[in-house]
Amino acid sequence: MTESLHGTRLAAWRAYIEASQRLFTQLEEDLRADSGLSFADYHVLVLLSEAPGQRLRMGELAGRLVFSPSRLTYQVSSMQRRGLVARESCPEDRRGSEAVLTAAGLLALRDAAPHHLRSVRAHLMDDLDDAEVACLNRIFERLGRRLRAERDASSATPTPLRSS
Amino acid sequence: MTESLHGTRLAAWRAYIEASQRLFTQLEEDLRADSGLSFADYHVLVLLSEAPGQRLRMGELAGRLVFSPSRLTYQVSSMQRRGLVARESCPEDRRGSEAVLTAAGLLALRDAAPHHLRSVRAHLMDDLDDAEVACLNRIFERLGRRLRAERDASSATPTPLRSS
Repeated sequence: MTESLHGTRLAAWRAYIEASQRLFTQLEEDLRADSGLSFADYHVLVLLSEAPGQRLRMGELAGRLVFSPSRLTYQVSSMQRRGLVARESCPEDRRGSEAVLTAAGLLALRDAAPHHLRSVRAHLMDDLDDAEVACLNRIFERLGRRLRAERDASSATPTPLRSS
Repeated sequence: MTESLHGTRLAAWRAYIEASQRLFTQLEEDLRADSGLSFADYHVLVLLSEAPGQRLRMGELAGRLVFSPSRLTYQVSSMQRRGLVARESCPEDRRGSEAVLTAAGLLALRDAAPHHLRSVRAHLMDDLDDAEVACLNRIFERLGRRLRAERDASSATPTPLRSS
């Protein structure tokens, strides 16, 4: 099954995908045990806490999380029921809606963050030397930038209704 | 929210987690579009294809995938309905059961693999130079080994029924 990826590159890919899946499972177990939050809950709380006015349009939030609109609606509804976020219509566009961080959501994030970051350190970051940290940052900062640009380009290109 | 992870280490962690989540979403979209398989389907097919006799005990498969028993049962049942795997009782332990790769499962993997690996190359691996590949391998090979050892240690330690 190595038709197009060989030797050290295949080994590196498999080490990365397998260890990352294992790490994310472990971090989510820790997060649920410490704070009762899923990875997606935590990520939504972080994004909203850093946004101006602690609010984001649903479309912007879906893009940042790489969630489909239906998955985001499900996620935000679940957080709304737990009082962590509220949903409001956009002031400048009545058809759009925004997710707004509640005070309870901010407090939940403040409680969860030290536990979560301790778990990130214990499972991954404390084991890396400075050169490995720099390498991790370089690889994934570039990858994230490229994937965001590709997605923006594909969503910005209007599908032609007919060829002319 | 940076109580315990600072500066370049926090930046590297966030670049890694955000780009990886984005990458896995993109790879799964490509896999579904090309082959109708989920990431989990593909991973099960790879693990079974590489196992002796193309079969693994359910407990072993759950450990390799870091799936709970109920999640694995759901996953394998879904693949069984599509004819990709079969389930049989273990020859040496009638209470245990094994997942067995079917011929249709092997053919599905052979069809999917070139597309999937092309997508892995296009989105990640072709953009890395040899030093970055070596660094990726070193970090994640070590991480995977440590996480497997931690999990084996925690599942091997029997929970005491009472303190003595």
